[in-house]
Amino acid sequence: MAGFELDSRLARDCIVLGRLDISQLLLMNNALVPWFILVPVTTETEIVDLSAQDQARLLQEINLLSGFIKENFNITKLNTAAIGNVVSQLHIHVVGRDPADYCWPDVVWGRQERRAYSDEELHKITGAIKAQLLS
Amino acid sequence: MAGFELDSRLARDCIVLGRLDISQLLLMNNALVPWFILVPVTTETEIVDLSAQDQARLLQEINLLSGFIKENFNITKLNTAAIGNVVSQLHIHVVGRDPADYCWPDVVWGRQERRAYSDEELHKITGAIKAQLLS
Repeated sequence: MAGFELDSRLARDCIVLGRLDISQLLLMNNALVPWFILVPVTTETEIVDLSAQDQARLLQEINLLSGFIKENFNITKLNTAAIGNVVSQLHIHVVGRDPADYCWPDVVWGRQERRAYSDEELHKITGAIKAQLLS
Repeated sequence: MAGFELDSRLARDCIVLGRLDISQLLLMNNALVPWFILVPVTTETEIVDLSAQDQARLLQEINLLSGFIKENFNITKLNTAAIGNVVSQLHIHVVGRDPADYCWPDVVWGRQERRAYSDEELHKITGAIKAQLLS
């Protein structure tokens, strides 16, 4: 899409997993919690400013990603959020949370703790994503 | 709806503004930032577990509320989130944010700063809500 380029901060912090219907699918490179990000390919910065059709496509992707996280990780709660105070490019966080994780019940945004994925961990996640979401 | 009762913590922290199509509409009693909450009348705790029809109704309410906040407050960004780590009852925050507000660019969740609305402020907001969203 003309005018669309993945924000440099998202590109730096995340691994690009692939393209869904309307969004690029990213994985935050932080193995402390399963943290995915949908970046709709649009120059709008608010969900409310998307067309009804694009909202429906985005909602469908949030549903698919939510199901994927519930299926593949030991989590008890999903945190789904469009914030964008630092990176204005529209992006939706879908994070699997659990009372055993590093900052429960606090939100993950604004926390500094990070552990990059190992190659093996990443291989496992990308394999599951390919088989279940990108096929 | 049988089995639905507004969570006691939400009831304590918020002002109930009224009922929309699928959700109760709440106002966080914190005048530092325009912070509304939609509580779908359901016992599900995740958006992904709502029926497609209920998801569509909720999305429509998020759109209406987003438009209301953009129209009635000096804000530059919307923060929209379903978290639920502390209060598991499904509720969606829609918060108007601005670089001039008290904790920009941090998220509002987990911050302790509060200022209760004055009667006059509350009267103004409830009047606008009644005229624009509940009519």
